[in-house]
Amino acid sequence: MQMLDLIRRKREGQALTPAEIEAMIQGYTAGTIPDYQMAAFLMAVYFRGLDRKETAALTRAMVASGERIDWSSIPGVKVDKHSTGGVADTTTLVLAPLVAAAGVPVVKMSGRGLGHTGGTIDKLESIPGFRVQLSREDMVRQVKEIGLAITAQTGKLAPADGKLYALRDVTATVESIPLIASSVMSKKIAAGAEAIVLDVKVGSGAFMPDLESARKLARIMVDLGREMGRRVVAVITNMDEPLGMMVGNALEVREALNVLRGGGPRELREVCLTLGSQMLLLAGAAGSNKEGRRLLENLLAGGQGLKKFQQFIAAQGGDPEVVDNPQLLPQAGEQVTVAAPAGGYISAVQARLVGEAALLLGAGRLTKESPIDLAVGIELKKRRGEYIHAGEPLAVFHVNDRTNLEAARERFLAAYTLAPEPPAPQPLVYEIIK
Amino acid sequence: MQMLDLIRRKREGQALTPAEIEAMIQGYTAGTIPDYQMAAFLMAVYFRGLDRKETAALTRAMVASGERIDWSSIPGVKVDKHSTGGVADTTTLVLAPLVAAAGVPVVKMSGRGLGHTGGTIDKLESIPGFRVQLSREDMVRQVKEIGLAITAQTGKLAPADGKLYALRDVTATVESIPLIASSVMSKKIAAGAEAIVLDVKVGSGAFMPDLESARKLARIMVDLGREMGRRVVAVITNMDEPLGMMVGNALEVREALNVLRGGGPRELREVCLTLGSQMLLLAGAAGSNKEGRRLLENLLAGGQGLKKFQQFIAAQGGDPEVVDNPQLLPQAGEQVTVAAPAGGYISAVQARLVGEAALLLGAGRLTKESPIDLAVGIELKKRRGEYIHAGEPLAVFHVNDRTNLEAARERFLAAYTLAPEPPAPQPLVYEIIK
Repeated sequence: MQMLDLIRRKREGQALTPAEIEAMIQGYTAGTIPDYQMAAFLMAVYFRGLDRKETAALTRAMVASGERIDWSSIPGVKVDKHSTGGVADTTTLVLAPLVAAAGVPVVKMSGRGLGHTGGTIDKLESIPGFRVQLSREDMVRQVKEIGLAITAQTGKLAPADGKLYALRDVTATVESIPLIASSVMSKKIAAGAEAIVLDVKVGSGAFMPDLESARKLARIMVDLGREMGRRVVAVITNMDEPLGMMVGNALEVREALNVLRGGGPRELREVCLTLGSQMLLLAGAAGSNKEGRRLLENLLAGGQGLKKFQQFIAAQGGDPEVVDNPQLLPQAGEQVTVAAPAGGYISAVQARLVGEAALLLGAGRLTKESPIDLAVGIELKKRRGEYIHAGEPLAVFHVNDRTNLEAARERFLAAYTLAPEPPAPQPLVYEIIK
Repeated sequence: MQMLDLIRRKREGQALTPAEIEAMIQGYTAGTIPDYQMAAFLMAVYFRGLDRKETAALTRAMVASGERIDWSSIPGVKVDKHSTGGVADTTTLVLAPLVAAAGVPVVKMSGRGLGHTGGTIDKLESIPGFRVQLSREDMVRQVKEIGLAITAQTGKLAPADGKLYALRDVTATVESIPLIASSVMSKKIAAGAEAIVLDVKVGSGAFMPDLESARKLARIMVDLGREMGRRVVAVITNMDEPLGMMVGNALEVREALNVLRGGGPRELREVCLTLGSQMLLLAGAAGSNKEGRRLLENLLAGGQGLKKFQQFIAAQGGDPEVVDNPQLLPQAGEQVTVAAPAGGYISAVQARLVGEAALLLGAGRLTKESPIDLAVGIELKKRRGEYIHAGEPLAVFHVNDRTNLEAARERFLAAYTLAPEPPAPQPLVYEIIK
């Protein structure tokens, strides 16, 4: 295998064989293929793509580069859930306990926030004492005991993906659908759940800007998972405006608690019910979408999801008191109201800009090493489609450091478009790809 | 300047500013921009191209990265000549002395052969004692004395191009017209001649496979040179079949001597006269193409070019006796005749395969560090359009090491297509781009 020849052939739009892709990933992981050749290859892939067979080979090779978690000692179909990343998207914190409360074991490796999107691990760390690093043994034991565990991704699963992703990040080759698909799926396959529900976000706050790209990504990921023997479903959901009303780590834990308590924003609850019923269906715990939904609604109404969340917090060393007293979560020193500069119907809220405003307040990280402030963030007061008067509060900023406050306010206000007429409604869930 | 942003913008097909390109080349030369980012950028350029302004900025930045040779102490218009590389193309060895004999100072930096193409510096090294490394001072003094000097390219001219070319070579990003153009022209501009004649080869043995690409490359190079204050002309010539009848280093010196003696293959002589008359025209030593041509024909007939070659060899430490006794050049131990396996009209001779066969005999180098055998090569006996009987000699291989002899013979015979009817003639010179 000559890497130069593989780059050239991909550059010419030819397909590589599975053996060639495997050798390439092995060589790259072992360091015999240098970063500069892989960078050129990745850019050629950006322009030429990878076909289904190549994408599958890449995914397999990345899975083979590291450990795999074995859940076979736990009975039942273990489910995992993955979101491609959004703003005010705290679905995992709602769904993991809720689905576990329905008797389906939930095993999840989560990431940290990067850029304008939040990350489940950061959110969980806002709970005092919470441990996000679990050993494989601890995870298995915890799932056996309470049916649920969430841990930070380790470098031991699909390390080739870790190395490749770091290179893509600095060579402008992240935005390639087959590369995104194999990156996500290699980690999901290595993490070992039998059933996986993918939440593919589309819109201004998502990595997929349009429905067509989202559909393509979803199709590839579902097929990849299925080829590797997993039950997979992808739900394409709206990330044009922020999903919930809270942006920021402790704030999103609070919002998840609200939903588990039977409240919370309608849109967040709705997406959780859609994703959750797919999780139950895949695990065989519901016979139909409708049945799954009803089951989850009952669990929300009965408070079993909330109780499971409390159990889960305790199991991972966190203070379970936060469930009843959310004020135990870190709180920002100051609340600053941001008022609408003019009146009108809110016809668009660009989720990315809202996420970036929260980032400027310190809720996210610009580079992987940046510290974050778990207490700060944005509490939204209005949604797309609502009418707002000039001077009425659009949001409340939770602030600890005023350094970037003005920049954050500007970025935040830029997210809003006002119009004299109400906008046409947008779907919340576009489609389900099986 | 954020390299990641420049990669992304180029990937999206946007143009970069001259200041951005300059900063990028400076950063790359200084080592603050890593190879992997430059590799991704180069692949994006492969797909998206560079516009005229970007190409000029890249060329200027590469010139600015190193030394420039100052010929101002020598009167007259100094001319340089560059070929994009071919097989049996010994035009430089004919033209440099011939044009110098016409009173026009010829200053030339030449390269070594790489892959299937030969290099002037290797050919000159087959002359016993010949020194290919001259200091700038030696070069200037020699041009003052005899009107001619040829030296190996040094890393001091356009070092950014040297570093970039090495990276392109291992990342499959060589074949990009703006990158080729700026690589060639940065070295030519830094080498300092006021007038430059470019021989852009097109066909099976050339880097430009078709006339359209060759025309595009020629146009860009001529414009680049002109913008930087040089007189530049490009001649697009045929490299579908080998130009002369000799392939190999000492063999090509012999063939150059034959042409300078008034003989040699018609096609090689013709291309030399075309390029040479353009050199005279640019230097102001002839008023028209026709006049330049007549002048050169007279010099060939009178032997002044041959005499100048002898002077040139002596000036650079070589044995001037080789001019009268070519048997003093290294000779291979064995001559092996390669016969036509069948009869017919030769309808195609793929120059690249002929060059590769010579490479297999040891006449060229597969990597920059490979040793080469200056004596070996191929003496062609027939040209495209001729009729050959089965068993008649197609060529004589000059061989020292039989290891790859069979592979060379196979590769060589694969170059030939025979047909029952004679092929339509091909032009030798396609066009002149001014």
